[in-house]
Amino acid sequence: MSFVDEIIRSFDTSLIVNCWKYIFPVLVVCYLIIFLYDKHLYGSKKTKVAPVVESKQKIDGIEYVGEIDLYEFDPIPVLEEKEHIPFKGATVTLDADPRKAAARFYEIVNDRRSVRSFSTRPIDSTVVEKCIHAAGCSPSGAHTEPWTFCLVSDQNIKEQIREIIEAEEFVNYQQRMSKQWTTDLKPLRTNHVKQYLSDAPCLVLIFKQTYGFKADGSKKQHYYNEISTSIAVGILLCALQAAGLSSLVTTPLNCGPALRSLLGRPTNEKLLVLLPIGYAAEDCTVPDLKRKPIDRILVKY
Amino acid sequence: MSFVDEIIRSFDTSLIVNCWKYIFPVLVVCYLIIFLYDKHLYGSKKTKVAPVVESKQKIDGIEYVGEIDLYEFDPIPVLEEKEHIPFKGATVTLDADPRKAAARFYEIVNDRRSVRSFSTRPIDSTVVEKCIHAAGCSPSGAHTEPWTFCLVSDQNIKEQIREIIEAEEFVNYQQRMSKQWTTDLKPLRTNHVKQYLSDAPCLVLIFKQTYGFKADGSKKQHYYNEISTSIAVGILLCALQAAGLSSLVTTPLNCGPALRSLLGRPTNEKLLVLLPIGYAAEDCTVPDLKRKPIDRILVKY
Repeated sequence: MSFVDEIIRSFDTSLIVNCWKYIFPVLVVCYLIIFLYDKHLYGSKKTKVAPVVESKQKIDGIEYVGEIDLYEFDPIPVLEEKEHIPFKGATVTLDADPRKAAARFYEIVNDRRSVRSFSTRPIDSTVVEKCIHAAGCSPSGAHTEPWTFCLVSDQNIKEQIREIIEAEEFVNYQQRMSKQWTTDLKPLRTNHVKQYLSDAPCLVLIFKQTYGFKADGSKKQHYYNEISTSIAVGILLCALQAAGLSSLVTTPLNCGPALRSLLGRPTNEKLLVLLPIGYAAEDCTVPDLKRKPIDRILVKY
Repeated sequence: MSFVDEIIRSFDTSLIVNCWKYIFPVLVVCYLIIFLYDKHLYGSKKTKVAPVVESKQKIDGIEYVGEIDLYEFDPIPVLEEKEHIPFKGATVTLDADPRKAAARFYEIVNDRRSVRSFSTRPIDSTVVEKCIHAAGCSPSGAHTEPWTFCLVSDQNIKEQIREIIEAEEFVNYQQRMSKQWTTDLKPLRTNHVKQYLSDAPCLVLIFKQTYGFKADGSKKQHYYNEISTSIAVGILLCALQAAGLSSLVTTPLNCGPALRSLLGRPTNEKLLVLLPIGYAAEDCTVPDLKRKPIDRILVKY
């Protein structure tokens, strides 16, 4: 007699019916526990951060003490109501002729390569600051501007960042990344040693703010904060390139909390990317990669 | 007697012990089904797409028929091994003086505003194509270039896109978005009516490719495809601005599959953002918002 036959034979159907009498309430209780725990963690809708106010305060002239769920009240917008003003479109362009402007811009960004070998030659940090200022002009969901740019020029902090990242990257390359992933990176000749983190004259760590705070201290939802911050990174890359600086977009796997803590950033900020910035080393080489031709990235309708 | 007392009294403990004799194998079978289904969907590691080859092919000189898990073999890199060539850094900049270059770039992007009211005045579509070409110079995880730019100029297709989006946005504003979210958007004066989708001379729909395909037809993992594609969007915004064109970054909630299907894009592509592109309407207004000052986005170490 097979194993399956044995299981089927051993079933006493009346007993199963009896069982459900007991199991059903247990399942209901389990479901309730999970439901309440989930609600406790995420609020009544998963996409919204419960805007809980923790101290004595006035809302609409009435004073409340303790935790208050603001959803009981009319929500306060993250932005103040602003006057709408006329807008005529772009006034500052690269060239009065749009074709020439687009062609020149293409030349600038097409000249960019990811640099993994930096010169220790110092850079003018005010240039990087201006580039970050440009990145801050990025659009963002509901104009929440959910980004923080940490500009590290101090050699000692750069060395500490390198130590944290190399220790994690050693484990990443040995254990956490799939064999396929490490193979895919082979043509880029990367490994866990990140010399550029101490060589590059400055590092910019870009944090996405997963939520923010309103003037009254309550939480402010940051819609699409990862996409918004990544778009700002794209603008930063263009600005750096326009100013003749090289960079590299890195996503240090599993290093976020340690780096956040090192830089004393609050818990609502999560590391998105880290960019070493500077000039390419004298002996810098890059893989002879080609970009996809335009007809492989553009489809016209 | 309370309802809870009744439940407790009704428990026959010996029966519960008997029950488990039957329930245990059922639970084991359920667990196995879930485990195998999960493994089937995600492979042995959740972060990796199982690279399954579905037809007759040769690997290392041996011919295989049917599904083959490539992890049994030495993985093939997504990139070919390339020669490494010297790289001297940027040669095309905005200005020979890095400070002037950064300041000029800042002026260009600071001039950008999200435009929600477009003129129907035609634009030179070759300019938009060049801007997309520039966006394609974005860096990407393991140089996978995981993006597709769909440029829609056809009025009929634009109208169909508008119909799809307005129908979904009506439900979004009425039901799916939290009261807080719709309140947060009030200062931007948005609603489900998207006139700009048919007014703007062109729409660019940007899809992230969640995975790709190698030359042999097997799946290719696209690392960090959302961040990479968002960075490319940032570059596109700069290019459009440099060429004097206005745009708006939109994330049409729940419209991705319908729009993907309308444009005949494959299932590995997911809509990230949609940009109407053109010139601001004569009567265009924008909320009089201010950007955060530099010291609220930049922290120096």
